Amino acid sequence: MLAEIITIGDEILIGQIVDTNSAWMASELNLIGIKVKQVSSVSDDAEHIIEALQLAEKRVDIILITGGLGPTKDDITKVTLARYFNMGFRRDQETLEHVTDIFTRYHKPMIESNRKQADVPEGCTVIMNKNGTAPCMWFEERGKVFVSMPGVPFEMMYLMKEEILPRLKQAFKLPCIYHKTILTANIGESFLAVEIEEIEDSLPPHIKLAYLPRLGQIRLRLSGTGTDEDILKAEVEAFARQIINKVRKYVVVDQDVTLEKALLDIMDEKKLTLSTAESCTGGYIAQLITQHPGCSSVFAGGAVTYSNALKVSVLGVKQQTLDVYGAVSEETVKEMAAGARTNFKTDYAVAVSGIAGPDGGTPTKPVGTVWVAVASERKVVARLFNFSNRRIQNIERSAVAALAMLLNELKQDVG
Amino acid sequence: MLAEIITIGDEILIGQIVDTNSAWMASELNLIGIKVKQVSSVSDDAEHIIEALQLAEKRVDIILITGGLGPTKDDITKVTLARYFNMGFRRDQETLEHVTDIFTRYHKPMIESNRKQADVPEGCTVIMNKNGTAPCMWFEERGKVFVSMPGVPFEMMYLMKEEILPRLKQAFKLPCIYHKTILTANIGESFLAVEIEEIEDSLPPHIKLAYLPRLGQIRLRLSGTGTDEDILKAEVEAFARQIINKVRKYVVVDQDVTLEKALLDIMDEKKLTLSTAESCTGGYIAQLITQHPGCSSVFAGGAVTYSNALKVSVLGVKQQTLDVYGAVSEETVKEMAAGARTNFKTDYAVAVSGIAGPDGGTPTKPVGTVWVAVASERKVVARLFNFSNRRIQNIERSAVAALAMLLNELKQDVG
Repeated sequence: MLAEIITIGDEILIGQIVDTNSAWMASELNLIGIKVKQVSSVSDDAEHIIEALQLAEKRVDIILITGGLGPTKDDITKVTLARYFNMGFRRDQETLEHVTDIFTRYHKPMIESNRKQADVPEGCTVIMNKNGTAPCMWFEERGKVFVSMPGVPFEMMYLMKEEILPRLKQAFKLPCIYHKTILTANIGESFLAVEIEEIEDSLPPHIKLAYLPRLGQIRLRLSGTGTDEDILKAEVEAFARQIINKVRKYVVVDQDVTLEKALLDIMDEKKLTLSTAESCTGGYIAQLITQHPGCSSVFAGGAVTYSNALKVSVLGVKQQTLDVYGAVSEETVKEMAAGARTNFKTDYAVAVSGIAGPDGGTPTKPVGTVWVAVASERKVVARLFNFSNRRIQNIERSAVAALAMLLNELKQDVG
Repeated sequence: MLAEIITIGDEILIGQIVDTNSAWMASELNLIGIKVKQVSSVSDDAEHIIEALQLAEKRVDIILITGGLGPTKDDITKVTLARYFNMGFRRDQETLEHVTDIFTRYHKPMIESNRKQADVPEGCTVIMNKNGTAPCMWFEERGKVFVSMPGVPFEMMYLMKEEILPRLKQAFKLPCIYHKTILTANIGESFLAVEIEEIEDSLPPHIKLAYLPRLGQIRLRLSGTGTDEDILKAEVEAFARQIINKVRKYVVVDQDVTLEKALLDIMDEKKLTLSTAESCTGGYIAQLITQHPGCSSVFAGGAVTYSNALKVSVLGVKQQTLDVYGAVSEETVKEMAAGARTNFKTDYAVAVSGIAGPDGGTPTKPVGTVWVAVASERKVVARLFNFSNRRIQNIERSAVAALAMLLNELKQDVG
């Protein structure tokens, strides 16, 4: 089953916003067995939108349209769809009440252009958009499904999850799909591929294995297609167990979560606490962790010790250590980790000190030289990394390296 | 002058990567007066690519293609372009030497598929890709320009900046364009629009004003189109000065930079130092600052005091203050800022304490309640914000609010 995503609006075409919606939609559609054939971003121009609809209709069965549903005169998706399907308009009472409600709640005056948000092409099914004023519209015409959604990411995501994906599953009798994701760390893609080559070769044609690499982490995704959900699930899970048994020491978790979320879950379950001591990552690790609701049960906090003075005063690094070995050294990073663990009173602490670049490199410590340490009750371990030479990438890779090292230690300590 | 961007490859269509390239390219093209008519993401399928090329050729004059240039058999952009233009292949010696160089430098064995990266369609001009092995190819056919670039963002960006944009300017006799950006903060879009309404109404038709809002900051961009660069520049700058004079107290800087970079530049010039004390933002502010090379001259570091214990031990917040007023209060956030300033020995400190959500809200302090404080030699000021109820957005808005408050204090102190 094929779909096309059409995004409408000049914001993407002038580069004001990055289209994050399409990747999210594509990945959700893939999970239920719908392949995205093309993504087209077109301007707020009726002729151009109609051309895109005509072409999409020739290529695919499902056309998902985002954007162009606001109350201003730039937003022409709705009138253009009505013209495309040769439909008149009706005012949808439920939508009108919903829009009126929102304006009342925020004590804002409602003008005619706001009321017009409740006007929809006669032949469509209205799907209530709980999070905004623009209704979502579902058209079934000439054997194809067209869905028009708002472009605001959280409105679109909620509608997709709660309404559109379930309806598509019903409308198209999609095959049964089962996915199983295994998150690995501390191993490169090609080495991982060699390790599990035999298992991969033994997969039946209806089960595929995808390598999804990102910054030192690799997600392995098994995707099975079949007719009986229970049988399929049992089959895919059996292969997943084979893979996990083969590369157990690199497996973080058999779920589709981020590395830091997996760590938080493990530590929360074992009632362990964590702190951070960051130099070149500048708060990036703390920020990754605190994106996750409920992290406070594990994460006490940390220090961003960009200056040497703070390494001494906040983390208790010895001035002599800095003088003799420098800030980017095994000795300093170990004292940073140990100091964070002691001063912040946590079970574990991770520390990073490195040269993110573009400046600050020397012949012996070039840009990309990064020391990472993990302190636990048992010991303090440190490891040297040499990354590439772009600042943001060095920061990101250092953070992932620190989290992966913490995972390693945790596994040794709590199994 | 119209362009179309075609991205080739399944990664975007299965949602594995977000297409950040197109927005960047669109914004760069806009700056030299080229409008992007459509962005199309198509699969690694020859027929589909050819269809996209045919359609684009009908719509626009410039077709920019990214992706599908790797050495594996999935990457079919090059052979498809040769087929589209009915061209044979030649091995490009300069590219072959460059690829050989790269393999020698990294001590990697070179196989035939790597050498094939130097094979290009006969009729194209090869543009050297210094940062990778896939050559960039420029075709001029039937009065149109087609450019094929690698999809790796930094390779593409370098090629666009150094090679493609200058060549497009020459190839198409583009009008002279001059842009001037003014970064504002601490004022909403509609209020800003009212303030500068008269100036906006007095703009001649060849000078446009765009409002580019993002999380509490608004960039005002004046874009002039003309024939004489000097005259145009003088005109646009004169209007920019009018705007700056009218809304001086909201102007951060008259450059196209981020808020935190503007702050770093101001503080660096005045030799002032900064530290941070973050609770709900969890290191996000420190991380924004440390993305910028050279920030260490201003930024000493900071604390992520997620737990109350760390607020006391690291920042010196009084236990009594936490007990009486709570962690999310004016009193606590002021002590956090003052404590960071004292303990971290900096001229300024910003502190944030709030409820990012989704849990932790109470009737008197709902999710989105955020206190921000700025401490300077002169005083400690605090302000209460009430943001919406999504965690990541609350964190981002809190960070911008803190930076904008710091800017305000700086302006009062150093003018």
